[in-house]
Order: sequence, then structure tokens, then C-alpha cells
Amino acid sequence: MATQSSHSSYPSAAWRKAYRTGSRPDLRVPYREVRLSNGGTVPLYDTSGPYTDPEHTVDTRRGLPWLRENWIVQRGDTEEYTGRELRPEDDGLKIRHTVPRGAVATDDLRNLDAVFPGRARRPRRGHGGAAVTQLAYARRGETTAEMEYAALREGLDPAVVREEIAAGRAVLPVNVNHPEAEPMVIGKRFLVKVNANIGNSAVTSSIEEEVEKMTWATRWGADTVMDLSTGRNIHTTREWILRNSPVPIGTVPIYQALEKVDGRAEELSWDVYRDTVIEQCEQGVDYMTVHAGVLLRYVPLTARRKTGIVSRGGSIMAAWCLAHHQESFLYTHFAELCEILRAYDVTFSLGDGLRPGSIADANDEAQFAELRTLGELGRIAREHDVQTMIEGPGHVPMHKIKENVDLQQEICDEAPFYTLGPLTTDVAPGYDHITSGIGAAMIGWFGTAMLCYVTPKEHLGLPNRDDVRTGVITYKIAAHAADLAKGHEGAQAWDDALSDARFEFRWEDQFDLALDPETAREFHDETLPAEPAKTAHFCSMCGPRFCSMKISQDIRRDYGLSEAEIDAAMEEKSKEFAEHGNRVYLPLAD
Amino acid sequence: MATQSSHSSYPSAAWRKAYRTGSRPDLRVPYREVRLSNGGTVPLYDTSGPYTDPEHTVDTRRGLPWLRENWIVQRGDTEEYTGRELRPEDDGLKIRHTVPRGAVATDDLRNLDAVFPGRARRPRRGHGGAAVTQLAYARRGETTAEMEYAALREGLDPAVVREEIAAGRAVLPVNVNHPEAEPMVIGKRFLVKVNANIGNSAVTSSIEEEVEKMTWATRWGADTVMDLSTGRNIHTTREWILRNSPVPIGTVPIYQALEKVDGRAEELSWDVYRDTVIEQCEQGVDYMTVHAGVLLRYVPLTARRKTGIVSRGGSIMAAWCLAHHQESFLYTHFAELCEILRAYDVTFSLGDGLRPGSIADANDEAQFAELRTLGELGRIAREHDVQTMIEGPGHVPMHKIKENVDLQQEICDEAPFYTLGPLTTDVAPGYDHITSGIGAAMIGWFGTAMLCYVTPKEHLGLPNRDDVRTGVITYKIAAHAADLAKGHEGAQAWDDALSDARFEFRWEDQFDLALDPETAREFHDETLPAEPAKTAHFCSMCGPRFCSMKISQDIRRDYGLSEAEIDAAMEEKSKEFAEHGNRVYLPLAD
Repeated sequence: MATQSSHSSYPSAAWRKAYRTGSRPDLRVPYREVRLSNGGTVPLYDTSGPYTDPEHTVDTRRGLPWLRENWIVQRGDTEEYTGRELRPEDDGLKIRHTVPRGAVATDDLRNLDAVFPGRARRPRRGHGGAAVTQLAYARRGETTAEMEYAALREGLDPAVVREEIAAGRAVLPVNVNHPEAEPMVIGKRFLVKVNANIGNSAVTSSIEEEVEKMTWATRWGADTVMDLSTGRNIHTTREWILRNSPVPIGTVPIYQALEKVDGRAEELSWDVYRDTVIEQCEQGVDYMTVHAGVLLRYVPLTARRKTGIVSRGGSIMAAWCLAHHQESFLYTHFAELCEILRAYDVTFSLGDGLRPGSIADANDEAQFAELRTLGELGRIAREHDVQTMIEGPGHVPMHKIKENVDLQQEICDEAPFYTLGPLTTDVAPGYDHITSGIGAAMIGWFGTAMLCYVTPKEHLGLPNRDDVRTGVITYKIAAHAADLAKGHEGAQAWDDALSDARFEFRWEDQFDLALDPETAREFHDETLPAEPAKTAHFCSMCGPRFCSMKISQDIRRDYGLSEAEIDAAMEEKSKEFAEHGNRVYLPLAD
Repeated sequence: MATQSSHSSYPSAAWRKAYRTGSRPDLRVPYREVRLSNGGTVPLYDTSGPYTDPEHTVDTRRGLPWLRENWIVQRGDTEEYTGRELRPEDDGLKIRHTVPRGAVATDDLRNLDAVFPGRARRPRRGHGGAAVTQLAYARRGETTAEMEYAALREGLDPAVVREEIAAGRAVLPVNVNHPEAEPMVIGKRFLVKVNANIGNSAVTSSIEEEVEKMTWATRWGADTVMDLSTGRNIHTTREWILRNSPVPIGTVPIYQALEKVDGRAEELSWDVYRDTVIEQCEQGVDYMTVHAGVLLRYVPLTARRKTGIVSRGGSIMAAWCLAHHQESFLYTHFAELCEILRAYDVTFSLGDGLRPGSIADANDEAQFAELRTLGELGRIAREHDVQTMIEGPGHVPMHKIKENVDLQQEICDEAPFYTLGPLTTDVAPGYDHITSGIGAAMIGWFGTAMLCYVTPKEHLGLPNRDDVRTGVITYKIAAHAADLAKGHEGAQAWDDALSDARFEFRWEDQFDLALDPETAREFHDETLPAEPAKTAHFCSMCGPRFCSMKISQDIRRDYGLSEAEIDAAMEEKSKEFAEHGNRVYLPLAD
């Protein structure tokens, strides 16, 4: 398995892990402090977890500390219990007998080493199925430690977080079985968040790679991670990811359920699905994508589409509906599903199974019909005290993006919108992080609460390490550009700090304030590799003679001592000009 | 110098050069035909010039054929004449004596081989300084061969091009001394265009690299190229670029003028500048950025900015204004400049010397004050029959982008807007093609006619070959996303063709229809390298069992034979559902 070396350290020596302590000593909220060469510091939001804390010894075989254990236990509304037994089919194995907890199936020796060896754990749930959700607390007016933690990360009053959750306008996804997670909040009132997808598939990838992709994605700023594994070892991979993840983990349970019925959609049933959901609730999955809005009568609406149904979950459910001529079990058992999720505080991410897969299909009847059903299901979920997000597209040209947010906010009672891109054109496979980064920034500005990243490999293959970084950075750009456009408190301070460094030729500070200091440094060094160049008073683009920043500084310097004096002198000269009649063609002779 | 091998061939074997012939046999308009595996073809706009025509023998030492020679000569309003003599300082050399035309300065032996050896050429200009501009023709109601050529490229009636030019809403930049150029039109009524900057600097780069960057940029779709060279060999580099360029070439003459006065801005004068402009007019530069809007009284407005003046040209002119306490010679001699440009049909690109260099400085008084002056200068230029574009920012957060276009269109009488980005955040050096690609797509949608690309090296260093490709592709994405959002005729046909290929698992067609087939292919092959995978009926992301496209197709296939039958069957089932009362919780037993 992955070892310490691959999960450690920030991408810059000038970044330092720091903490703000809240109302209780065990409520220590991490942030990233960027230390500047001029003695200043800039605090930035941090998602990298204990891995970047030098006080923490990284050991993925032990997992992360149980940060929230005391808070959960002290609330006294949950109980430990003996969970369901691990079965070979949980890991996609064909031999259908039960094995003792912690043991492994016999037909896959590779899996032997993979079973998570950390601290023994019994699953926890609300006493007698009681709602132990952040929504339930918020509605009772109780500010949980999790709410305070998330508020401090955003620099806001905890009451704001509580009120937004109570109103259903925000979610704080934290399963009571994922005590390792650092609480964060998703809602339009807060910083726009970014999700990174990881997950092996039947074609390629390993557990080790997936755990490392998770720590790698959060190192670059992913706020949540979805494990979309579909091949073997699904259960075990997820266990390793959860026990090592400082961010909320999302899944799409239907993927694993389908593995359990050997990939035959028509053999899916509520029983298999329910069992899978409970399995994942007990493991600690924080939010689950559920495509319960794919109704039988919507399927014909996709028949004339350019690209039909492109959501995996959506197409599985459509296939089931057609095979049985019934509404899907996700829809018919939705209330029962709510009762399960609320006992663990798992958040719904109501999936848009009929999202458009091409520019031609954007904002069509199938898409918006499903959205109306998601609005209806969201109300049912909230009646059960289950936190709920709504998923959105997909492929949408720029002029049709705003309608998506406006409709979703109206239909779904302002529930947090969680969108994939959208891609603003279909013609650039290999660059879909960019086609979708454009749409993501815009939809974030318009009110989307979380953006699901797209990597350069979208439509072509599975992302590798570099693709994950590129995807996360692109989406952090989109999210931050949206924060700026929304006028979010403090968002511009970061840009200002970097622009100051740029204007003052503090190259090292420019790199350290960048979303990706490694790449910034590397690109600069390609042109001017020598160390002194980083403090040189000119840019590597223009050379010493031409740098406009330099000339601009000279103008200031040559014209007086202080900025006030510059202004006064310049104003005087400017007045003189006006007194001369603002003449366009002054004789050059005078 | 660069040889044939580095300037040839399309990035896909399925792309073929094709031509539409216009109203005369020598009016052959190139396009790129993408041949699909199902026998279909998709025609796409093409900027790559003769290099991608197998009938053409590439020889950069000879230069491109003089496509427009007959058209220019037959109009009978220009004359050949003996141009100014080449001087060593034209190439930034210190020995100040004149040398015979075609010879080189003695203090730079590297330059010996570099003098362009192609067909001898005397410069051409309007008889007695007459306006020979496309604007002058358009105003007289004459449709030039150039207008017809540009119209056929866009699939439009030539009259539309003529009318837009006559109204000043579009420009067709073609110097009579650049007969190699393939005419194209820039205006909001047409496809959004992309400019790529190249150019050596005092720090690095060579002539050979610059010529190859030009052919490389146009191969990926750059509509124009700006040569922003600032070091040695400026004149010679430009000669090589012009003689080999199928796209309009833009420059910023003040850069070269500054070289001639050893980089001392205060020593610049109208005489040096005028001489440089004539030198470049005679060479064939198609459009020139002129920062004539930097007025003395605007400079104080920049004193309290976060990043002062970031345009090189702007800071040079500001320095001159302050040093002399006069309005700049660009402003005071503007009418005279118009008289020069109109005799060659050089298009103004009125530069925004005071554009914002950071989010904090966007849309400030300095920027908009200069814009008002650019509007005034644009009117003077058009009075002289000189075609005119207006340049725009820069760094602008998303919510302030639209104001830029709206104001520019209002103040500048709808003259084509030509913007750099804008970057929508400052915090991602190393990824500024993306921070700016977001802004570029949006500003293109709002009405910008041409987008100046930004590469990943922006703010950090000079772009290499890969950076140029990434910058061009990113901006082609932004431009095409804007075309889609504007509802430009035919723009969506491209997306539809690619989406069809995606849905039908025609992998090769997907790659061939991509903006960058090489990268798409390469990314796909990383995951599924075998040849059969490209026709396999599943995606490399999901594997055979999970592919939603596959399931979506199966739904269609399993449900009937034709699409109409599917619809009918599905509709019937859907009605049945409605007849059962649209009940949410149907009993599972029935």
C-alpha cells in the first residue's frame, strides 16, 4: 500500500499548517498560512488534512485520527452496533458465501494484503433510527461543533452556517461513521467548493493508486472526493479511502449494487440496493448520489436526443425501468431510503440521470422534467431531516447556463446545486477541463454551490496523477473566479496579495501565493533558471529594458517620494494640461 | 532556417485541404475537410495556409505564393516605389550607417544567413497617398476580391462583409505589401477570431523559432499572429514571418522604435516612430497596435492602482509623456499617422495602454478614460478611411466583463473589440490560459470580435511550442463556445457531428473532429492502447459493463427497430403510467 512518502508535504516550503481554535480546545480549524518574503502572511483555506501537518505522522495503514469522535459520542444520540457482515460480493467476488469480518475472499489473493489493518471499529447510527443529521440539529437551533468548525474555515459566524443548513440552502456532509472528516459546508452563501472524482474501473487502476489520488486531490484543494470505483475490491478500496480521508467522501451506490448482480441492470432490486446503501453508511460514506428522478415516462423524452442518456446511474435506472415497466425502486422506496440515511447523517446528492451529454441536448424536456422530480424528492428528504443537494449538468452552451441555476433554485427551494462543468462545447476532447472550466466558473457565479471537476481525460480515458492535479487546479480557478464575481468576503484579498507581489517583483511570493506554486516556479525557471532571477527587477517575458512593471514603478519613483506626493504632482500637471485647453494637437515647438 | 519538415501537414490524416472557388478562378477559398469513417465529411474553417496543401511545396526561403498580387495590381490604385533604405538599427544594431538593401550589419554575423532570400520585392502604396483600404472600397459599395474571399470562408454573402466593413463594425486587415495573406474578417457579426502572439525578446529566442511558431500557431487555428519581438533582428525576423505567413500579421511599432533609441523612452520622437511605421508598412504588416490613448492627464489615475500600468506600450508612452510634459506624439500626430496607414491599408488596433493588470484595477477610471479617447481616435481614423479595431483588457472579474463590451461598443461606434483574455483571477500563474479562457469565452459571447490568446507561461516566461499550442487551442475553445452562445450560423453543426460520433462509438471520428486530434488520440491510447479499442463499443473510462452510452444504445435497440417505433412504444408505456395515476409509491407486488 501507499507509504508515507507519497502523501506528505505542501507543494511549497512557504506554506505552513496553522490552526484557529474555536469554542472548545479540541475544535482546531486548519488553514494554510503563506509566509511572504516581506514578513507578511496570507491565510488560505486548506483541504489537505493532517498530511501537511509536520506534527502528524502519516501512516495510511493506521488511518487518520478520529477528529470528530468526541463530538459524536458526546451528543449521545447514536449507538454502536454490530454491522452487516462483509460478503465476497461486496468486493465484486463471485463466490457467494459470507466470510468473517476482516477476512477476505478466497478467489482474489491480491486482496489479502489490502484489507485495512487500522483501529477496529463498530458502526454507529442514530438510536432507534433517529435523525442525527446536521439538518435536524440546525432546525432545533443547535449549533454543532461541526457547524462551528465549518464556519471558522469560512471566516463566518457559526449562526450563518446553522441558519443556511436549517433552511435547506446548505449541507454539511459528515457521516457519523467518518469521524476522520474535517467538517465543511456547501451552499451558495459560502465559498464555492470543488469535488474530485477518483475510482478504479474494470479496465485499470489499483487500491493504492486510488488512496494516493485522494490525498493528491485534497493536497491541491479538492473539498470533497467521490469514489466512483466500479471493478473489483470496491468495498476494500472505499475502506482505505475513508479511513485516510480528511474530506467528505461521496459515492454512487448503484455502481456497487450493479457489481453484485454481475452487471445485469434488470436484476437490480431494492433489497440489493438497500443492503449496499447500509454497507456504505456503516463504512462512513458522507454523501450518496441517487438517481431517483429517472422516471419511466421521462425515458421516451431522451429517444430523439443527440446523445441519449450519458449518466451511468441514469442509464442503469432507465434500463431497469424499461425492463420491469415499473417506476424504479429508488423512487418507490425513497422514503425508506431517507429513513436509512438520516440515522447516519448521510447527505443526498440527487443525481441528474438525464443530464445532457451534448450541446444539442442542453436544457431539454427530459432534463427539466427530471429536475422537477428532484425538487419533489428533495422536499421529501428534508421532511425526513436528510440533508440534500441537487446535481446538475453536463454539456450546456454559455447562453443556456443561467437558466439551469435559476430553475434549479426555484424548483428545489434553493437546495445546494452541485454541477458537473458544464462543458460549453463538444469539440475539444483532451481539453474538457477547459471547455467545462468556462461553464463551471459561470455557473458558480450564478449560484452553484459545488463544482464537480472534469479532467483532461474526460471522454477519453481514466485520469492519472497529472490529470487529477490539472482538473483540481482548473476547478479551483473556476470556484475562486466565482467567489470573486459573487463578492464573497475576503476572496479578493488573495488576488490583491499576489498582484502586490507581482508589482513589487517579489517573484518567490508570486509563486507561493499561486494555486500551484510548483508549476509557476517550474515555468519561470524554464526561461530564467538562475536563482537571482527570482528577485530580479524585470520579468522573464520582456527582459530588463522592456518590463512594463519596471517602467511603471520608475514612473512612481521618479516623480516624488510618497504616493500622496506623486498624486499631487501629477494632478497639478494634469490641471496644467486642462488649462491649456485640452488641445489635441499641441504645437510640438513649445 | 526552418526547413520543410517543421512546417508541414495537418495533425490528422483524416483532414484534407479543400477549396471553394468564388466568382473568379483565382479566388479559391481554403477549408479543412474532415473525412469520417461513415463516409460523411465535415467542412471546417482553416487558417493553416498552403502548408497543409499537398500540392504546395513548402520552402520558407522562398516564402508563400503571392495570392493577392493580381487583385491588388488590377485595382490599379497602387504604385510600386523605392522604399526606405534598410538601416542597421532596424535590426537593433548599434553601428549607425546605412547598408545596401538586402545586406546585413557587420556586428552581428549570426544575422548573415538570416536575410530573407526570396523573390525581390519593391514596396507598394496608394497613388499619391490615396486610401486603398477595404474600408474605402466598402464605403464606395465595391465588393473586393478580399471581401468575397472572407465571406466564403464564413459561409456568408459577400455583401454582409462589405456592409459591416463600411459601417466600421468589421475590419479586413490586409496590407497591400502582404500579398501572401489569406483574407479574413474581424467583427461581431462573424466567427470570433483568435490572435496568437509570438516574438523573441532580449532574453531568449531566434528567428527560426519565431517563423516556426507562426506556422505552428496557424496550424492549430490562430486567425492572426502578432510579432512582438523586442530584441535583435527585429526587422529581419519580421521579414521572414511576413513572407511565410498566410494570416494577417500585427505588430506594436513602438517596441521597435524604442530599440532604435537604445531603450530610452524619453528619446523617442515622432520622427523615429514615423520612420518605423513606414518601415513596417513597406514590409507588409497588416495591423498595428498604437497606444495613442495614453494621455498625460490619465497617468495620475494609475498612481493608486494595485499594479499601475502593465501594458508595455502604455508604460513607454506614459514615461514619454511624463518626461516631456507633453501629450504623446502618437496622439498629436494621429491624423498624420492615419495618412500613412491608409496608403498601405494597414489597420489600426488602438491599444489599451492603461488596461488593468489585476482584478483590483478592473473597470477603473484610468481604463475607461482611455477608452473614451480611443473612441475619439477611432472616429478620426475612419474619417481617414483607415480600418480600426479597439483593444481591451486584461484582468477583469466575471461580473465586470459585460460592462467592458457594452461601454466599448457604445463609445467606439461598434468598432471591433479585440481583447486580451480577460483573466478572471490573479491567483493562478502557470494556468493563465485557463483563468483568461473563462473571460475570453464570456467576452466573446458578449460581442468581442477577436481574442488575443494567453499561454500557460503568461506572467512567468516566454511560451515554447507546447505553450503556443495550448494557448491557441484554449482560445479556439473560447471562440467556438462564444460562437455557439451567439447562435452563429453553422457553429453547432461541428458539435453535433462530434456528439454523433461519440454516441455511435466512432472513436476515430471523435478524434478527427476534435480541435486537437493528436492530443485526443494520445490520451485515449494511454488507457486503451490497442487499435481495436478505437472501434470498441464502450468507453475507456467505464469498461464494457458500465458504459452509459452503450446502455443508452441498448435501450434504443431493445425497444424496437426504428426510432419512430421506439417513440411510439415508449409513449404508450408512458401513457399507461399516467393512467395509473402517476402514483409515486406504486405497490411493488403488481
